[in-house]
Amino acid sequence: MKKVLLAYSGGLDTTYCALYLSKIKNYEVHAVLVNTGGFEKEELETVEARAKKLGLKSFEVLDVTQDYYEKVIKYLIFGNVLKNQTYPLSVSAERIVQAKALADYAAKIGAESIAHGSTGAGNDQVRFDMIFQTVIPNIEIITPIRDMQLSREEEISFLKEHGVEMNFEKAAYSINKGIWGTSVGGKETLNSHDTLPEEAFPTQLTKKEPEDLKLTFEKGEIVAINGEKMDPVKAIQKIQALAGPFAIGRDIHVGDTIIGIKGRVGFEAAAALILIKAHQLLEKHTLTKWQSFWKNQMAEFYGTHLHEGHYLDPVMRNLESFMQSTQDFVTGEVNVKLMPYHFKLIGISSEHDLMSNKFGAYGEMNKGWTAEDVKGFTKIFGNQTAIFHQVNKTLDNG
Amino acid sequence: MKKVLLAYSGGLDTTYCALYLSKIKNYEVHAVLVNTGGFEKEELETVEARAKKLGLKSFEVLDVTQDYYEKVIKYLIFGNVLKNQTYPLSVSAERIVQAKALADYAAKIGAESIAHGSTGAGNDQVRFDMIFQTVIPNIEIITPIRDMQLSREEEISFLKEHGVEMNFEKAAYSINKGIWGTSVGGKETLNSHDTLPEEAFPTQLTKKEPEDLKLTFEKGEIVAINGEKMDPVKAIQKIQALAGPFAIGRDIHVGDTIIGIKGRVGFEAAAALILIKAHQLLEKHTLTKWQSFWKNQMAEFYGTHLHEGHYLDPVMRNLESFMQSTQDFVTGEVNVKLMPYHFKLIGISSEHDLMSNKFGAYGEMNKGWTAEDVKGFTKIFGNQTAIFHQVNKTLDNG
Amino acid sequence: MKKVLLAYSGGLDTTYCALYLSKIKNYEVHAVLVNTGGFEKEELETVEARAKKLGLKSFEVLDVTQDYYEKVIKYLIFGNVLKNQTYPLSVSAERIVQAKALADYAAKIGAESIAHGSTGAGNDQVRFDMIFQTVIPNIEIITPIRDMQLSREEEISFLKEHGVEMNFEKAAYSINKGIWGTSVGGKETLNSHDTLPEEAFPTQLTKKEPEDLKLTFEKGEIVAINGEKMDPVKAIQKIQALAGPFAIGRDIHVGDTIIGIKGRVGFEAAAALILIKAHQLLEKHTLTKWQSFWKNQMAEFYGTHLHEGHYLDPVMRNLESFMQSTQDFVTGEVNVKLMPYHFKLIGISSEHDLMSNKFGAYGEMNKGWTAEDVKGFTKIFGNQTAIFHQVNKTLDNG
Amino acid sequence: MKKVLLAYSGGLDTTYCALYLSKIKNYEVHAVLVNTGGFEKEELETVEARAKKLGLKSFEVLDVTQDYYEKVIKYLIFGNVLKNQTYPLSVSAERIVQAKALADYAAKIGAESIAHGSTGAGNDQVRFDMIFQTVIPNIEIITPIRDMQLSREEEISFLKEHGVEMNFEKAAYSINKGIWGTSVGGKETLNSHDTLPEEAFPTQLTKKEPEDLKLTFEKGEIVAINGEKMDPVKAIQKIQALAGPFAIGRDIHVGDTIIGIKGRVGFEAAAALILIKAHQLLEKHTLTKWQSFWKNQMAEFYGTHLHEGHYLDPVMRNLESFMQSTQDFVTGEVNVKLMPYHFKLIGISSEHDLMSNKFGAYGEMNKGWTAEDVKGFTKIFGNQTAIFHQVNKTLDNG
Repeated sequence: MKKVLLAYSGGLDTTYCALYLSKIKNYEVHAVLVNTGGFEKEELETVEARAKKLGLKSFEVLDVTQDYYEKVIKYLIFGNVLKNQTYPLSVSAERIVQAKALADYAAKIGAESIAHGSTGAGNDQVRFDMIFQTVIPNIEIITPIRDMQLSREEEISFLKEHGVEMNFEKAAYSINKGIWGTSVGGKETLNSHDTLPEEAFPTQLTKKEPEDLKLTFEKGEIVAINGEKMDPVKAIQKIQALAGPFAIGRDIHVGDTIIGIKGRVGFEAAAALILIKAHQLLEKHTLTKWQSFWKNQMAEFYGTHLHEGHYLDPVMRNLESFMQSTQDFVTGEVNVKLMPYHFKLIGISSEHDLMSNKFGAYGEMNKGWTAEDVKGFTKIFGNQTAIFHQVNKTLDNG
Repeated sequence: MKKVLLAYSGGLDTTYCALYLSKIKNYEVHAVLVNTGGFEKEELETVEARAKKLGLKSFEVLDVTQDYYEKVIKYLIFGNVLKNQTYPLSVSAERIVQAKALADYAAKIGAESIAHGSTGAGNDQVRFDMIFQTVIPNIEIITPIRDMQLSREEEISFLKEHGVEMNFEKAAYSINKGIWGTSVGGKETLNSHDTLPEEAFPTQLTKKEPEDLKLTFEKGEIVAINGEKMDPVKAIQKIQALAGPFAIGRDIHVGDTIIGIKGRVGFEAAAALILIKAHQLLEKHTLTKWQSFWKNQMAEFYGTHLHEGHYLDPVMRNLESFMQSTQDFVTGEVNVKLMPYHFKLIGISSEHDLMSNKFGAYGEMNKGWTAEDVKGFTKIFGNQTAIFHQVNKTLDNG
Repeated sequence: MKKVLLAYSGGLDTTYCALYLSKIKNYEVHAVLVNTGGFEKEELETVEARAKKLGLKSFEVLDVTQDYYEKVIKYLIFGNVLKNQTYPLSVSAERIVQAKALADYAAKIGAESIAHGSTGAGNDQVRFDMIFQTVIPNIEIITPIRDMQLSREEEISFLKEHGVEMNFEKAAYSINKGIWGTSVGGKETLNSHDTLPEEAFPTQLTKKEPEDLKLTFEKGEIVAINGEKMDPVKAIQKIQALAGPFAIGRDIHVGDTIIGIKGRVGFEAAAALILIKAHQLLEKHTLTKWQSFWKNQMAEFYGTHLHEGHYLDPVMRNLESFMQSTQDFVTGEVNVKLMPYHFKLIGISSEHDLMSNKFGAYGEMNKGWTAEDVKGFTKIFGNQTAIFHQVNKTLDNG
Repeated sequence: MKKVLLAYSGGLDTTYCALYLSKIKNYEVHAVLVNTGGFEKEELETVEARAKKLGLKSFEVLDVTQDYYEKVIKYLIFGNVLKNQTYPLSVSAERIVQAKALADYAAKIGAESIAHGSTGAGNDQVRFDMIFQTVIPNIEIITPIRDMQLSREEEISFLKEHGVEMNFEKAAYSINKGIWGTSVGGKETLNSHDTLPEEAFPTQLTKKEPEDLKLTFEKGEIVAINGEKMDPVKAIQKIQALAGPFAIGRDIHVGDTIIGIKGRVGFEAAAALILIKAHQLLEKHTLTKWQSFWKNQMAEFYGTHLHEGHYLDPVMRNLESFMQSTQDFVTGEVNVKLMPYHFKLIGISSEHDLMSNKFGAYGEMNKGWTAEDVKGFTKIFGNQTAIFHQVNKTLDNG
């Protein structure tokens, strides 16, 4: 009996896969749910109970939240990565970590095949396959939903035939939750002109009175919330708990999918957006002009390459080395004000703040240089452009 | 008697310059106020009245708002330029256009000198000087405030001595207004940790009920508001009038000044922010992946180079050619919702929208390609990374 | 009878395709040879004679050399494009133009199918298919050699069976010739450590005495050789004729293929290398620092994107607009010395040369600025770095 | 008596400075010659003898060649840095290391001032001053030649007056020698159209018979020459000794000086060019496509920023982290053939070579993927461009 490892989420598609692989294809099915911080204990128990009823050979939950932070989220914060200036890559990023965990697990249990429930129209199929073909090139990949192009109805009737009981009602939106945010797809996101209604978002607005939030960073990493020290994973969860009820961090991402079409998806990611924007403000005070320039040039690519499943391209490690190296002095506190639907960056304090009055105050006073210095500077700074126009007589005057 | 052209704003510094140049230095002073859309008719009359009393040889108002749009703002929208991801370059951009207009005027009237009221601690001194030395290299530049490092009190007492009457009270904040936004500097912006209070902003929150706003773009330019056709300059003013009372577009910019220190300045720029974000959303639907990539790579530089006064470097014309060329299909409507302190992009409609259901819906259905196509794609797409890891045995499994 | 357009070169593979499609598949075969400047009149006549004997429905030669220059080569010169700092994209570039010409022709004659002789291991299959699927999405693509994975022997025996007479001897190297260079593949290029022997190259060393060559450029385009005006296509051919006998421009390109493996191919391209290097030298004298910077940042991508068959991505038109715009003052003469195996750039003369003694001579004399100016410049230019180190106490001294 | 540290090279300018500072300005002059590998033992003794006669308080030779390699040259090789695609930054790079050594020494001896002999028309003045103002902000910088704009004749007559005997004859060319190359300026390099004659170069052509050279790299660093292990500094000197007599590595660099004018300078740098080109070839075989892309994007900036004296900008450390991280598998051997005036890269061998026949041979055979895989790949790879043209009806056919 051939062993298959199935990426199992407890939903309709992967439940279908589980049954199809064991009953029809006669596989010994080992199911794994990879938790990236989006599943509560209770939900996991429900999934486990269902898995057991399906008669799978084994079922495991792998919690990779900490690994997800260390391998990916940390660099998304260092790079202030927002795909298309909007989306913190909530789903794209966690797929990579899930795929890597699945591949390692498949190798560990000696699986001959690995299965996932992706369809043929999304990004996840590419992300999973690409990680699998690199990490476990000799293990066959099986994708029943994609290959058979099954309709929802066909899947349900197959499951009912085999006596599976679960909630078969279609949810209004397809929701995906992880520590770096929750995506919300369906209805309005399928066209270009509608926006998601309030009720589509998992977290509803329940706080209305502004609250202050103080974030402490050390070498680019979040280390304390409102003065209380905690590790980054906890900190992210804490920020989400504090800011979520303000309905902060909701938006719709539109962008290029890996397969060339445009895709649109809603999300709520209060913690991700607040952390990135706060970190970025601290960097504005502590990095030099060219550090910022190059971080920005590369961060967009880093996000896109990750989004497209290229996490294992060694260039990603190189870009991470760069980013890590820029964080040496990104240490300090950022004050934020939380309000309904939005937040405001108040300011920062840092012993590495380059905006120090010792060296002159912008627009107010020049210490450390004279009027003559600036005149000389300007003459030389603009020298080439002046020469260009004189040589080429491109300006009428003078 | 030597002729000097003075960049005159009607404020304390340039009034001092006017008097100093005529009375002490014996120049024939020609004053020019360059309006970039920030002066109302009434204000201009007040300034003119004062100018006349100062006994200047001539006083002119040059309205360059249209030119400002054509030469600069248009490209800031094409490039979705927000310096440091925040600031629409409200002041930086207008200085360039003012300096160019002043230089041309100085050449026209045959001035031997040109004077401006910049201090030695800001960006404007560099912007003005750099444009002047390029456009009118043979005309001497005079900057009394910078050179003499005068205090406010010294200026006032000199003006009083010479019988000048004007409001000598120091405003709480230094305000600079133009069509692309208003900057607000002083007090809180002089340190890193405080934020501006509500009352520091010229426009106060007076609207609370959400309003819809429909923007129509044609080849990247705004051509209609709520269905009503109007030229871009009018459109910008209209958006500001509609969105300003929601207190939209307020923020604080922190960044690198030309002279190497960090600077911080508040601003309100509702029209600029709404236009850029709406335009950017339309681009997300109409540009290809690599068009967006390269626009982003270059736009940050374009903004910084403009900010630093390098508008006449021919590379700016080259970048503008690139940006113009990307706008061919950036045509369509963007719906926006205005709310207190923030706005929301609802969606777009465009006949150039690449998110067309004809070609498959993201995550839903694959038309135009099969499961096998994506498998083949993924195999090749990840080929090099897979080879890399096999050659270098960098992964434990497989 | 279904109509197929066949890309025909007269070689073994496409002769096989011609016969296979007409005899076995019963197509009405229309053959087209697209000349990009690599075929002499005599060779074309041989190919035509063979085509006639094969009983094809029609045979046409499309000469696209001029189009090739206008659409592609011109920009490769503007961009100084050498893939991996070595390869002028001789083959990659011509495939694009050939594919576009074939697609247009297929549409014109109302073909139902289009066929090419590419194998499954190279770049050309992707280039052809990608252009075809974009330009003629409704015309079926047929690739017999790739699909059937035929061996050379199988092809020959099939042709012999059908009475085809041609030279069946395998050439030592696979040669591909066009106006922008000749590629040479086989034997040594199939591993990483050997180099091609002298005799592998079509043009042999026959000139030993150094010769001078004067190239005149106008707005980046070559317009005269040794003072004689001629159009760019003629000029390229002329340079090749003058420099080829010096065995100039030979090298081996190693790089990433579209399909993820590394590929290696020899080439000789005297005209391409001389033109690019001469043009680049002229640019060093006439462009500003940031024009060069951005040209370089983009040109590598332009070359790679072209190499990978993405010519029709609109970003290519945008990059071309940028490059065109940089050429306004790239006008002047470049002197070159031709020698066995290499050439030397002597110098340039141009009225747009920014290295003008009027503004000071490097290292010799400072006109136009004083020692004080440079001191002021340096103080401000290094201001931020000095502040950085003082704030962060990263240096021991001082 | 105030202490001054003088950067002393033994030439006319710095000998003038030594005497001027001690005799006229009454400084206690401490002279230091910073050797970056360009001075032979004998030359150093001559300089020392002269220094002693000048009555300086102290004279030291600091040999920073090893440091120069570790801090700068290593990264110039990692980045394959050739400024303007031509110049290995021979002089620019060594100035930085010299300046840093001087600054540290000045701090060590408690100097109140630091002096150098730069003129007002070159890059070196900026490089020295910028490093000094950052590393030793409280030590005054003195530049007599620049400040007094002395002519050669004035300097000589002053020295003669004070009894200094040295060779006062002006050399035909100004030569600067270090381990990373020798620059040659004067006469022909002062205009745009002449090239340097053979005799201007310090090393003359004396070898004519081709020689083989085998370079072994480990993680990007040169570790052996022709199979003999040696440390990088030795290896560079060895390559220079072997290749120099072929007159390899001569060229003229034209580019933007820091002060905005164009500058032109000849150089010979056989070792630098061979090492960079050999290293680059090894990278073509061992790096992925995107590693190369980003290395190239950044390396040009790294070179320019170094050239402009910004070595201490922390962004340089960040870029070095990136580059270091890319070198993990740049290990293997490169074979080179040395010939009169040029060299040829033969090929490489490396266990990290990604061009492995195991994965298919370019243009020959596809192992590891099928024709169908490539078809699927191509369909998806070109999907967006095809959609773009269909949506926008930009192509006539189909």
